[in-house]
Parts: sequence; structure tokens; C-alpha cells
Amino acid sequence: MRLANLATIVRGLHLLGPTTRSDLVRRTGLTRSAVGDLVAELTDRGLVHEVPSEPTGAPGRPSPVVTPRAETNVVLGVEIMVDTVAVAAVGLGGTLLRSVRRPREHGPADVDRTLDDVAGLTSDVLDSLTTPSALFGVGVAVPGLIRRDGATVATAPNLGWADLHLVAALRPRLASDAPISVLNEADAGALAESRRGAAARRGNVLYLSGEVGVGGGIITGGHQLTGSTGFAGEVGHLPIRPDGDECRCGGRGCFETEIGEAKLLERAGLDPAAGAGAITDLLERSAAGDADAVRALEEHGRWLGFGLSGLINVLDPGVVVLGGLLRTLHPHLERPMLDTLDRHVLADIRAGTTIAPSALGDDAPLLGAAELAWDRTLADPTALPTPLPRSA
Amino acid sequence: MRLANLATIVRGLHLLGPTTRSDLVRRTGLTRSAVGDLVAELTDRGLVHEVPSEPTGAPGRPSPVVTPRAETNVVLGVEIMVDTVAVAAVGLGGTLLRSVRRPREHGPADVDRTLDDVAGLTSDVLDSLTTPSALFGVGVAVPGLIRRDGATVATAPNLGWADLHLVAALRPRLASDAPISVLNEADAGALAESRRGAAARRGNVLYLSGEVGVGGGIITGGHQLTGSTGFAGEVGHLPIRPDGDECRCGGRGCFETEIGEAKLLERAGLDPAAGAGAITDLLERSAAGDADAVRALEEHGRWLGFGLSGLINVLDPGVVVLGGLLRTLHPHLERPMLDTLDRHVLADIRAGTTIAPSALGDDAPLLGAAELAWDRTLADPTALPTPLPRSA
Repeated sequence: MRLANLATIVRGLHLLGPTTRSDLVRRTGLTRSAVGDLVAELTDRGLVHEVPSEPTGAPGRPSPVVTPRAETNVVLGVEIMVDTVAVAAVGLGGTLLRSVRRPREHGPADVDRTLDDVAGLTSDVLDSLTTPSALFGVGVAVPGLIRRDGATVATAPNLGWADLHLVAALRPRLASDAPISVLNEADAGALAESRRGAAARRGNVLYLSGEVGVGGGIITGGHQLTGSTGFAGEVGHLPIRPDGDECRCGGRGCFETEIGEAKLLERAGLDPAAGAGAITDLLERSAAGDADAVRALEEHGRWLGFGLSGLINVLDPGVVVLGGLLRTLHPHLERPMLDTLDRHVLADIRAGTTIAPSALGDDAPLLGAAELAWDRTLADPTALPTPLPRSA
Repeated sequence: MRLANLATIVRGLHLLGPTTRSDLVRRTGLTRSAVGDLVAELTDRGLVHEVPSEPTGAPGRPSPVVTPRAETNVVLGVEIMVDTVAVAAVGLGGTLLRSVRRPREHGPADVDRTLDDVAGLTSDVLDSLTTPSALFGVGVAVPGLIRRDGATVATAPNLGWADLHLVAALRPRLASDAPISVLNEADAGALAESRRGAAARRGNVLYLSGEVGVGGGIITGGHQLTGSTGFAGEVGHLPIRPDGDECRCGGRGCFETEIGEAKLLERAGLDPAAGAGAITDLLERSAAGDADAVRALEEHGRWLGFGLSGLINVLDPGVVVLGGLLRTLHPHLERPMLDTLDRHVLADIRAGTTIAPSALGDDAPLLGAAELAWDRTLADPTALPTPLPRSA
């Protein structure tokens, strides 16, 4: 009971920010003295401190503001993508203390080299923290199918990884006993956007991230949709075009083959393998009125809408967040996408659905990995952190 | 605490059937005397009785078998479909005591006439029960979008209904204060199959029912997927064929337009409006080797597999249950459907997925409506029933 009350308070502070004692009383339904007692324990544990509230001019003694101590209580978020590797230190309350991102080579990834890079970035990030801190956990986002153990990558085709126990491979490099959890990159994006982004405090969310591949993170009724084997959310492999291109999954006409980066370039008559730089050129040409570029974006938007329509009719997500490349493209694809949704989504569902670009941008999966790392503490604020590993 | 323990025991008896006291002790982790005490209360309330167990030849006194009293504790399930209306009385423990189904005319349904039919069938069913009984609730399955209130039909296109407060319309006709809940027909099918059918005790299920329209009921992590507005699961309107036929939803190339009854008849060169009788003829012609019939079923199976592939990649349901017409067609569509799944479903997800025909058959939604009606009692076995309404 006491543990549950501690957890309610910490979770509220982490998600909603600094809160006066009076508001904690209102929010929790606990008595003033019970809240005082719980806040005292959290203060003793170093998780929060109380700061005087701004004078409001109202009579009576101002209620102190209970504030998460971000600088001394941290988790690490790690994101391993096709193009980049990133590491962030995030304080309790969601404060981003420090993050670094480093480009890496395309193509099948050497596991050891990648994880050495992660370890190097982690040292850089931790060494740059100015206050002695405690580490509560590490979350790692990977563009692949993650097993239910939250530790093993079953397959990550764009990284060339399969059946990799990522936690076992990463632990010795981090020189820390902190819990390490692995999650799918789009699931991480969905988690971050639903906690602090474009879908904040929404219980039903579809996060769609497009880059080389297209991933989906689905939250229904406040919970991540994991499915029977943990691999749910593979929206990139929703077949939508029977006569479409072959997909790297072995199928044909998948959502991913229609709305991935390569297809957009192909639609504009460009080299499909030309990469992100060519997309920037394409958008500039479109802005300048180039007919091929305009037509390519129009067609791309219709295909985005076509696949999204089915996902909305099935999931009724309330809010769809477009991340990664789809966030960049959003203003250019919005009109044809919405026209297509209006035609294909059932009216009663359409009326309750909004489509928004990611609010957290390219860091959404990185921040989501950090959020996952916080989950143990949010469930049990008495779980002890580990000392921060320091290089040298 | 006591309420939660009562609920655990009643839920177990309802879902798993008669159980010895010894097994209740094992299953609940409660002491023998606590179980005895709880069973005594349930006996006093008339929900269960104890019957001597069969002699096993083992030494010691046989443990009595705690058995739900199905005949005296009932709910009503109601199913309103395009072709038929059905009512069932189901006892605690899931025993089907009595059911009747009556054909009704195709096309837009006069609400008053339909509900009068339901009331008539309900009287027939209740009057035929031989033991004085108590009514715990009524569940109503409707092929349409049901609002989150569990009472209002937002739209049921094949019935021609929109914005109908079905509970308010039905209550005076039932002459009972019993709680009435409304749910989507495919959600009802999913509920029944996941409790007592082809997906028994599975936490992730996709139930797909095909008739005139195609409906979906989705269970993820043990919970019905309801979505943001309560309308999730509209798998019939997953667009899968950009150049396909227009759908009654206003879209084009929906899953429903590709795998509905009309399309199968059209594929075989028959009148798409010829109905269920023509399907029977088609299956007979296929069995006799008629090339058009064989080819039509082959093509239909591939489209079923194509749409299902996307749903499986997104939902990772573990088990897919085919109900309604799709159950009848299952043996004829299975091979081309599975071939298509093998090509389009990600290997790691495919390995964990089985496709099964409905075990409860045409009554799955009717039994699911009854299961919904039991839910209040399963959560709170002290909730009082209402007297059984009797005609004259």
C-alpha cells in the first residue's frame, strides 16, 4: 500500500512535473499528513526535493513545490539506427541532461563495433554530467523485432542482426549492473510521444516512423500492444498493393515498399538509393514548383493515406504520430494523405482521429528508450540505483 | 479482499467448470478453511452447490465438487443479424439452456419490428425454462459500431440503423430491470471463442467473421481492443486493393469487398446477390471439379490470406479464428490462404500464429453476448439478480 502510494507520487512527478503538496493531496486523494510522510521518504531517498513556490499574492503560507531531482537521478537512453547511434542521459522528471549522436556506416552492422561505439558515447555522456549521480537503468531502442524477454533482438534486417542477446553483449561494455532493457525503435517513439510528445496523456496511439524501413508503435488502452510473441506493430509489412514491388520481407506491396524513402525518390525519377540528402533536394525542387517533385509527393501522400486508413479502421488510435522521415515530409504529404483518409476511414472513426507530426523529433525513440529505463523506478521507487560507471 | 476472492472462485468455476475444493485451494492459493468459507457464501447465495465426487479408489474422503448452478442462474444472449435474430438463455458455467433463432427479412430493418421479435423470442426462451430462475443480465450483439456506453448503436449499415439507443428501446419490451449491454457482433464472437472456443485461454486473438460484411473482434493482452472511440476492429475496411471495387463505406478495395459473400459469387460468375444458398451450390460444384468454382475459391483464399497477412503483422494475434461464412469456407480456402500467409507474414510472427475455424459455429456471437452479460457477476458475485420476467 505504501509502495503503491510512493509509486503514484513519483509517477505523477515524473510525467507531470513539479507539483505543490496541495496538488499532490488533491491528485492522490491521500491526507495531507500521508502525503507529507511519503514526500519525506522520497526526499530521504534523494529522489525529490522541495522548493518554495512563487508567491501568488493569495493569503496563507504557500505550499512547497515537490520537484524531481533530475541531475542526481539518471537513466541512459540508447538508440541504434541504420545511420546513427545516440546516447542520452535523462533525469527523473524527463529532463534531458545530455545527448550525443554519431553517424555510422550504412549496411549490415558489425555488432562489436556498434556496441563499442555505444560504450564510447556512454562514457562521453556520463563524464560530462557535472553532479555525482546514480544510474537507475538503461533502455536501448533498436529497429527490429525484440523478444518478450526485452533483451534479445530476434531480427533487425536493416542492421543485419539476428538472434542477438543484446543485453549480454552490452553489459560488460557499460561496466554497470544497472538493468538494461531493449525495445523496438517505433515502440520507443510511441512511448515517448505518449508521455511527453504529440500524444501526451493519450491512451490510444499509433506512432509511425519511416526511414529506410517503416515501423509502428501501438498503444491501446494505455498499454503497449505487444501481441502474442511480442512482435506486434509491424505496420511496415501491411500489404496494401497486390501488384506492388517486392519487399525485403519476401512479400510484395507492403506499406513500407510504398512509403519508404527509396520509393519517394523513385517516384520523383531519382536514384532510390540516393539517401536522405536527395530527399532534401526533392523537397527544395517541389518548393520551387518542379512538376515531377510535386507529383511524386502527391502520390506518396496518397499511399501514406491508403495504408494509414486501414490501420486507423482496425486500431481506432485517436492520434497518429508521424515520426522520422514522415515527420519531415508531413507538411508536403498532408493534403493528399488527409483526402485519402477522408475517403477510406469510417466516418465515426475519422471524426475521432487526428494526425500529428512527432513533437520530439528525431530524438523520440532515444527519449522513449530512456522512458522505458525509468519504468522500474516508477513502479517501485524503493528500487536502488547503481553507482554511475566512470571511465578511468 | 473477500469480494475479490469470491470473484476469483466464481470466475474460475464459470470458465473452467466444476472443481473440487482441493483444486480450488490449489488454484487460489487460499487456505482450505478460507475456500470452505467462500464456497459456503456462494452456496447460500444459490450460485453453486456441492456434489459428491466420483469415487477414485484413492484413500481418504473424496473432495466434494463445487458446481455452478446453471439452471437457476441465467443470463440472456441476443444476436441481431441481417438474416436472423436469436436469443439464448445461458446458465452460470456457460451451459446453454435454450436458444431459438428466427429468420428475418434482408435489408434495412424496422427497429420496432426487430425488437418486438427479440421480445417474442425472449418470452419463448424464458417460458421454456423449467426451473424458477434469476436473471443476471442481458447481452446484445449487433453488426455495427457500438459506442463506449455499451448501449448505443452509432451505426449498423447492414441493418440501416444509426444513433440508436438500443438499451432504452429494448428495456420496456423485456419487462426486466436486468442490466443490458450491447456489443459488436465480431467482438462477441471473439469473446466467446476466447473463453470457450477455438482460442480458449488465449490472451491474443483475432476473430474474423464474414457474411455480407466482414467484422473483426480483437483481443490483445487479455483485453478487448476498443480503441479511442470504441470502434476499433473494423478490419472489413482495411484497404488492400487500390483498384478494387467500391465499398459501401465509400472507400475502395476494402478487405470486405474482396472476401465478402458477394465477391465470391461474382468470382464464380454467379449473381453476387444470390445469397447463402448459392454459396452451397458453389461448394458442391467445386467438390465436383467445376473449374470456375475451383478457381473462384482459389482466388478468394488468396485475397483472404493477403488481407489477413497485414492484420497478423500488425496485431501478432497468435490465433486467428474464422467465423460465420469464413468458417464454412475454411476447408476450401485454407491452402491458398496459408500459401499467401507464408509469403507475406514475417517469419518470426508466422511461426507463432495458427488459423482455426470457429469452434462455436454460428452461435459464437450469441454465446459471446451471453458471456458479456455474465461479466458483472464475474467481477462481483454479490451483485443481485432480478426476478425472471414471465409473459402473463
